[in-house]
Amino acid sequence: MGRTSDARERMLDAACGLIRERGYTGVGVAEVCSAADVRKGSFYHFFESKQALTREVIREHWQTQRARWVAALSGPGAPLDRLEALFAMQVDDIRAEHASAAINGCLFANLSLELSTQDATIRADLQSIFDEQAALVAGVLDEAAADGSLTPDGTTAELAGAMLAQLEGAVLFAKLRNDAAALDGLWGQLRRLMH
Amino acid sequence: MGRTSDARERMLDAACGLIRERGYTGVGVAEVCSAADVRKGSFYHFFESKQALTREVIREHWQTQRARWVAALSGPGAPLDRLEALFAMQVDDIRAEHASAAINGCLFANLSLELSTQDATIRADLQSIFDEQAALVAGVLDEAAADGSLTPDGTTAELAGAMLAQLEGAVLFAKLRNDAAALDGLWGQLRRLMH
Repeated sequence: MGRTSDARERMLDAACGLIRERGYTGVGVAEVCSAADVRKGSFYHFFESKQALTREVIREHWQTQRARWVAALSGPGAPLDRLEALFAMQVDDIRAEHASAAINGCLFANLSLELSTQDATIRADLQSIFDEQAALVAGVLDEAAADGSLTPDGTTAELAGAMLAQLEGAVLFAKLRNDAAALDGLWGQLRRLMH
Repeated sequence: MGRTSDARERMLDAACGLIRERGYTGVGVAEVCSAADVRKGSFYHFFESKQALTREVIREHWQTQRARWVAALSGPGAPLDRLEALFAMQVDDIRAEHASAAINGCLFANLSLELSTQDATIRADLQSIFDEQAALVAGVLDEAAADGSLTPDGTTAELAGAMLAQLEGAVLFAKLRNDAAALDGLWGQLRRLMH
């Protein structure tokens, strides 16, 4: 039966929504099962623990996002145009979230601030994701440096880190104010960081 | 007796430490009382709820920080030197935290990402604090614009918001990596945002 065979996927979807909304500590296994319409007894058939479920939520979410990042960054345009498209995509996601509900922000940033001092395993997962994000951005900055459209002050790795920090700080304020307008000036700010 | 009369202060201190470490949801009233060496029965003599305690933690923490912000920003130096001193103070705080323990980051940012979608009252408290921070920074940017040391592209309010976003994003990465080095380039990044 469909309902049984996709129980794992339903639990992952439910957990992703709940954790983005209320964080790791605020969500319980029983609640995930109830939202996914799965009997609680089945949970441990699929996941060892809430931590294991959350790691899988993080992994799947990044897998989806990563494909979109790679698509945006490997298009045919000039390097800085592709970077602009990437950050515009982030802003559009927040705007879409804002239009349909409250802004929950970035799953990875939310969990970074919640769990970094508490869960070394999840923290390592999140570090890898932000490392990959920084490497993807730095790769395009390298292309821009090579074609002369960018003359970075320091390393492109440092610049990529600063750009992601600007993004995450802006997303934080968008969530705090439940207002996507906090992201309106983002590309202008990132351009200034690059020059 | 000292132990009794300062019970409220001890609960606030304990709660501030615990909440910075583990967030709002992860900390219970019983734990705060135990850490503060106060009988649980006394808690509700001082605070209506965990929310009320947390609001007071936030208020007191900002009262202390605000005095330091005002002191850093109203010194005798040039406006941009005072701004640099303010951000250096933030970085030094994280470095000191790193030297003595794990980096818990910014109480206000942590609670913003944890609670913005869940607690409208605490969220309003946090919004006011970040509004005040932005106004303090914008005031010094206005001084810099007036004396010609800064020619802002947009409004100084927008620029102040972007600078605070850069700070909070960098603090997020410092916490994620438990490494204050994530903040090494901060002033250089803020200078680029200003120019």
